[in-house]
This record gives sequence, C-alpha cells and structure tokens, in this order.
Amino acid sequence: MRISELSRASGVSVASIKYYLREGLLPAGAQSSPTQATYDEGHVHRLRLIRALVDIGGLPIARIRATLAAVDDDGAPLHHAFGAVMHGIDSVPDVEPDVGEVHDWLRAREWAIEDGAPAPYRLAELIGTLRTFGFGVTLSDLDAVADSAYATAELEVGYARAKPTRTAAVESMLIGTVVFERVHAEIRRLALEAVSARP
Amino acid sequence: MRISELSRASGVSVASIKYYLREGLLPAGAQSSPTQATYDEGHVHRLRLIRALVDIGGLPIARIRATLAAVDDDGAPLHHAFGAVMHGIDSVPDVEPDVGEVHDWLRAREWAIEDGAPAPYRLAELIGTLRTFGFGVTLSDLDAVADSAYATAELEVGYARAKPTRTAAVESMLIGTVVFERVHAEIRRLALEAVSARP
Repeated sequence: MRISELSRASGVSVASIKYYLREGLLPAGAQSSPTQATYDEGHVHRLRLIRALVDIGGLPIARIRATLAAVDDDGAPLHHAFGAVMHGIDSVPDVEPDVGEVHDWLRAREWAIEDGAPAPYRLAELIGTLRTFGFGVTLSDLDAVADSAYATAELEVGYARAKPTRTAAVESMLIGTVVFERVHAEIRRLALEAVSARP
Repeated sequence: MRISELSRASGVSVASIKYYLREGLLPAGAQSSPTQATYDEGHVHRLRLIRALVDIGGLPIARIRATLAAVDDDGAPLHHAFGAVMHGIDSVPDVEPDVGEVHDWLRAREWAIEDGAPAPYRLAELIGTLRTFGFGVTLSDLDAVADSAYATAELEVGYARAKPTRTAAVESMLIGTVVFERVHAEIRRLALEAVSARP
C-alpha cells in the first residue's frame, strides 16, 4: 500500500508517518519507483505499537527508539530482550537517589535486577517524595504489592514466552508492561473513588 | 521570605515560581512593599506539591489547576473533594470509547463512580488497545487486581481521613494517588524483570 493508504489503515497522519520514518522508528517501505514506496501489514502493526507507546506510555521518541531496538535485536537471548525493554522505557534519573534500601529489599526478595536498571532508582526517588510529604512508608510496607505484582508478572511472562516468534514475545512484553500498567492505575483510581464515596 | 529564598527552600527556579504565580497555581505572597512580596512555609509546601504533580504525575498545567481547585475548595464535602481530585488529574478522551462493559463491571462490584469520571473511559480505551494487540482480556480477568486495589484504597482513604485538616486530607489523597500509582508501576516493572530473568 502507499503512504496515504498506510495512514488510513493505521489512523496515523502522513506527517507523523514521515516523522517516524526519518527518526528510524518505522522501517522504510519497499521502493516501487524512484519517488514511491509501498508498505505492508508489518508497517500498520509497527505504527500501532508506536502510537501505544506515545499515547498510553507517554514515552519520548528517544525512549521509543531504544525500546524498539530491543524488539528488533534478534541476537540477544529472550530474557535479555525482556530486560532491555524494561530498561528502554525509562532512564536513571539525573540526580541519582540513594538506592541502598531498595537494593537490600530486592536482594531479600531474591529478585535479580540488572545493574543500571532504572526502576530501583525511580522507586527510591518516589519513596523519598512520599516521605517529604509525611507518608511514613518503608519498603516492607510494599511487600504485599510486590507479591501480587510477582504473581501477575509470572502470568504475563508466561503469556509472552508462549508467542510463536521472538519478536511477538518481546512485543507482547512491551505492550503488556506499558498498557497493563495504565490499566492497574485506572483501576486504583476507581477503587479510591468508590471507597471515598462510602460514608 | 523573598522569592529568591523561596526558590532556595523549594528547589524550584524563580522563573518557574513566577510562572506558577501567573497561572494561579501558587497564591500571591503578602505585599511587603510596592515592588516586593514575602512568602511563607505554605508556599514552599504548595511548590513541592506542584512539582510532584508535574514531575511524577506528568500533569499539564490545566490539570494541575483543576486539581488544586479541588484541594482549595473548602465548601464541598470531603468525599466530593476526593472525587474532584480523581477527576481533575485526567479528562474524558476526545473520542469516547464504549464504556458499557466497564459500567456493567463497576455496577456488579457496587463501586459508585460519578457520571463523567474519566477513569471508566480510560479503562475502556485501554481494554480496546489490548484487544487490538491480540490480548484476549475481559474485565472479569481484572477482578483480582480490583480486589487488591480496593483493599489498598481502604487504607489510603482511611489515612487521608485521619488528617487533622480538610486541606491536609485532600492533599494526602492527591499525593497518594499520583505517587503510589508510580510506586506500583515501578514494582510491576521490577517483578517483570525478576520473573523474566528466571529460566
């Protein structure tokens, strides 16, 4: 299909498609003439993925590029690719908080997290913010949340590993992470409203 | 204190403080001379709140204004203010998805959610996105997530209601919602990495 048809099929404007092509997020189409390229279903699918990362994940283009590189890298073992996805969607904060407490907690849980993963830094930063606002939160208060997250993660990783191709598995992890994260957040908001409506 | 001291105490630049004053997010200081205003601890606190909403919640200025209006409105009953906070941090999407399925699920759970609350629309939109990507998810798959969110919400709302003043209670709900949401998301990412590192 031509770029105008790709735009209709994906719901993404021609201008945005051209931008994603320039930024290397979307692979070039097959050159059908010196001035025209054709695109296929793979392009439609990739555009939907990019839009989910932009609209739902709120990821900037540089993060999306890092994350899609992990999806496209056929060489790495699957669990490396899963880790690369999780690291690609965020970065270590410029001002690094003290992560000692978070690392101790992860070690006690026997959760193997790669050095340089952004999530422990982000978690330490958030705990610091909560304390600034007078919430006397400790990591052991979050054990129940962690147990429940681990149980859900086992289902999600199992689901991704069962996919027929490596790319489909990594994409499934990526979409699962970004979209289910928002699903959980919206359900939390609904629960908070439901509880506060009660006398 | 003067604006330069307020900047040092809060870690927010003078330019940003002036912007928040112009946008009505931060109340004006007491006029100590025709060209000078003085600020107090209340301003430091409000600036920390604004920064948490910007940096952690990723909220645009218009959403922050709507949310802080709910914090400042002393007239409304507390549960209305809690609802207004939850609605202020988001908006109904421009293209409204079909929320019938979500409303049925909420009714079955006996969760009282106000008409016009953004969360049911956002949840319906996310479920639609997951289905586009081949996740065969139904709302009943999310019952365990909802049960656990409800139990946490009871603790959080109880904690907020126990605050000595109305403003402190509403602020606690706001910070709790925006920051704990990210805490849960980071723990989910860590759990996904921990599970995928296992053979």
